[in-house]
Amino acid sequence: MEEKLERLKTILGEVADLDHAMALLDWDQQTYMPPGGSDDRGYHLSTLSRIQHDMATSSELGQLLDDLQPLAQQLDPGSNDARLLKVARRDYDKQVKVPTELVAEFAQVTTKAQQVWQEARAKDDFPLFQPHLEKIVELRRRYAAIFAPYEHVYDALLDDFEPGMKTAEVQAIFTALRPQQVALIQAIADRPQVEDAFLHITYEEQKQWDFGVEVITKFGYDWERGRQDRAPHPFTSNFGIDDVRITTRFEEEYPVSSLFSTMHEAGHALYELGVDHALGRSPLGSGASLALHESQSRMWENLVGRSRPFWGHFYPRMQELFPDQLGNVSLDAFYKGINKVQPSLIRVEADEATYNLHIMLRLELEIALMEGSLEVKDLPEAWNTRMQDYLGITPPNNSLGVLQDIHWAGGAIGYFSTYALGNLVSAQLWEVINRDIPDLPEQMRRGEFSALLDWLKRNVHCHGAKFEPQELVQRVAGSKIDPAPYMRYLRNKFSEIYGL
Amino acid sequence: MEEKLERLKTILGEVADLDHAMALLDWDQQTYMPPGGSDDRGYHLSTLSRIQHDMATSSELGQLLDDLQPLAQQLDPGSNDARLLKVARRDYDKQVKVPTELVAEFAQVTTKAQQVWQEARAKDDFPLFQPHLEKIVELRRRYAAIFAPYEHVYDALLDDFEPGMKTAEVQAIFTALRPQQVALIQAIADRPQVEDAFLHITYEEQKQWDFGVEVITKFGYDWERGRQDRAPHPFTSNFGIDDVRITTRFEEEYPVSSLFSTMHEAGHALYELGVDHALGRSPLGSGASLALHESQSRMWENLVGRSRPFWGHFYPRMQELFPDQLGNVSLDAFYKGINKVQPSLIRVEADEATYNLHIMLRLELEIALMEGSLEVKDLPEAWNTRMQDYLGITPPNNSLGVLQDIHWAGGAIGYFSTYALGNLVSAQLWEVINRDIPDLPEQMRRGEFSALLDWLKRNVHCHGAKFEPQELVQRVAGSKIDPAPYMRYLRNKFSEIYGL
Repeated sequence: MEEKLERLKTILGEVADLDHAMALLDWDQQTYMPPGGSDDRGYHLSTLSRIQHDMATSSELGQLLDDLQPLAQQLDPGSNDARLLKVARRDYDKQVKVPTELVAEFAQVTTKAQQVWQEARAKDDFPLFQPHLEKIVELRRRYAAIFAPYEHVYDALLDDFEPGMKTAEVQAIFTALRPQQVALIQAIADRPQVEDAFLHITYEEQKQWDFGVEVITKFGYDWERGRQDRAPHPFTSNFGIDDVRITTRFEEEYPVSSLFSTMHEAGHALYELGVDHALGRSPLGSGASLALHESQSRMWENLVGRSRPFWGHFYPRMQELFPDQLGNVSLDAFYKGINKVQPSLIRVEADEATYNLHIMLRLELEIALMEGSLEVKDLPEAWNTRMQDYLGITPPNNSLGVLQDIHWAGGAIGYFSTYALGNLVSAQLWEVINRDIPDLPEQMRRGEFSALLDWLKRNVHCHGAKFEPQELVQRVAGSKIDPAPYMRYLRNKFSEIYGL
Repeated sequence: MEEKLERLKTILGEVADLDHAMALLDWDQQTYMPPGGSDDRGYHLSTLSRIQHDMATSSELGQLLDDLQPLAQQLDPGSNDARLLKVARRDYDKQVKVPTELVAEFAQVTTKAQQVWQEARAKDDFPLFQPHLEKIVELRRRYAAIFAPYEHVYDALLDDFEPGMKTAEVQAIFTALRPQQVALIQAIADRPQVEDAFLHITYEEQKQWDFGVEVITKFGYDWERGRQDRAPHPFTSNFGIDDVRITTRFEEEYPVSSLFSTMHEAGHALYELGVDHALGRSPLGSGASLALHESQSRMWENLVGRSRPFWGHFYPRMQELFPDQLGNVSLDAFYKGINKVQPSLIRVEADEATYNLHIMLRLELEIALMEGSLEVKDLPEAWNTRMQDYLGITPPNNSLGVLQDIHWAGGAIGYFSTYALGNLVSAQLWEVINRDIPDLPEQMRRGEFSALLDWLKRNVHCHGAKFEPQELVQRVAGSKIDPAPYMRYLRNKFSEIYGL
């Protein structure tokens, strides 16, 4: 039994190595790869995907999992080995159904599509991207069909990112949330708008970079185990527990976006860096789900990075770096400016109150594409119509509309709702954290984040993927994913800012 | 038969993909990877190595090669397919003898060793590196033993880099060359030394970078298919025919080293970028051997980059960029300064006349390590003794001595002699090129390199690894590797500079 368990761990370790090698191929593609490398990169990813899929679905692995079933029953159900066997079983059963050829084709198509997307976005040319997205939707539908019968065609896609969640569950949460968010936004719209003209001027890129680095260093980001680079769409990538890298970008239209993007990605990275080393090179050696991941990134970006206590510490430094831009702007005005609520075009720049509406839009379009009730060619129009309906604005071009995100080009359909779920979880955790660390606001005002990071490490990060997302939230917050704390948080925060 | 050939090409294509993925893991390790990533990177490379070795030595591949033997006989022996079958056969027969475990262990040990080497070099701490090098020597001896019986224990290692060459052949070439080089250096030493103090002052890094970029752009380096980054030891890496990247470094002690390093690496890159696309994703899709590679890098660095015609074009621009350093230095003085002959510590900075002595030193030490007549712990002393014997100088520390090159840390024992062979081939080709393009010096004086690059593409680059190195040199230069043209080149050049 011991020997079989060791053999299982060896195979899973090699599967993890292939995952990490593919992550590097992808990181490079988004940061440094010259355009000429695109076709060959498709082959690299396709070949590694095929090999990884063959290993992850080998009959040897299936046999080992069967043979180890009795051991799984004997073990403490909370032990690493018991959890490993459970997750490996779940992954195996799911992956074994997917043909190797489909995996390889998907890797190749999405590699090319991501390159074309960059060009299409730069040129505002949706038709250039359209055939690639059509192919991706077709491949995603073929993928979903493998798991028939299902409650909903979208379930299989969601489950890849949020193990155990159903489309109906997410729709129920969003249905409960939507009227409350809309009511809040309406209440805010009736109040005088806050001033934020000082954010829409030039902030030197290098100083933004430096300030971001100072901030996340204080958060506890370990530069011996990570780095920051530039990419068209910021992301975090890990190649093991001790090499977790972030990327950022600079936007002329919204100068401080890089700063919040850096905090956001650092939140993802801190999660991965905090996973127990005992879980390394295994299916448990990474975050529990994308919603859990997003709960961490949004917590550091928003609950920390857009809070009064945070800026109580950092604003003097910010003013020192940007005297021309902020010398005459008070802390209170700055705080209100960075928390301005206003419907806008770009999801990653949306404020906390409108953000979830961007998500609902994407989720609905994805579901329609998968159901076949919407064709890719009609996507720009559907996008723009919904933007107008939900947010009252229409994108002036597709680069600022349907082409803004890389996710669909990368094949990540099924993914977006996790962003909104992450917001909800972040607020659930935040209430518990503030009970456990009553002086957290004072600590943040002193620029101290170690107690917060330690709490997150102990309660969330260290567990990696040992627990399913709902299970982990239940353990830590005492209930499953629940929109109430997030709405409480939004109401408190924006009542104060807008005098509701 | 057709079907089997296609299947063979598919397997070889995937093997090439794995090679390129490993090349990226290595490139990243030497450019951007944070220190924490080292252990996991060892696992990545070890796993990919194992998989690649399994594929390259699979019984399916062996069977296909056997089955395709009749086809190989029918094909035009100069055709791509015939050459592919020949090279695939040779590689298979060699690799099938090597146990997978040895390959994986080697990858892991050398990954760690390269990281330790960086630290050891920074701290001038050879004992830190010693156990890693001992392990590497042990693994290389285990590797050589696989190919027993042999003429010489070092043969198998040399053959990996220079297919078909024997240790005895290389020793014979060097034995013929050594007295001629020593005599030339002695003759130079009797003449007044040229002035080069203007090279040993500060040259702004960014301007060096920019000038290097201008130069290699004129050479024809395609930035859509490559890029330049910084690395402790410059190298070139290819991830396909359309993604070939170079690296450079900046040395305070020898400010223009970056410039020549950039030209050197661009020479390697132009070779890989010039391979016929029909040979891509196959064992023929890369340079013929390391000596052939070095013939290209040294040609662009020295025969072009240290020539009077080259600087006739570029020197005004160089003076414009560095007016404080070179404003009062004549073209003639600059030309002589960058061609100063003087024994020095660092191989990559050695002049053309002393360079091969650095190589002979390393070759002799490698052979002694492999024979067992020298122990790793005694290597620094052996290095320093030989430096004194051959070049009349003793390194003040090991960072400037035995720790200066990354090659041994990467396990590349068997490799160094190819540098000297490359010098010889570069001069052989250069004589032919100058017969075929009689006005090449005038073209270079106008900053035109396209006829030169076209010639190299047509006669050398496009063939990739279709021909073994000696065969290719014979085809292009009319004889096998021969030291005479190189000695003619050195004598002509340095007679003029030193008035011999």
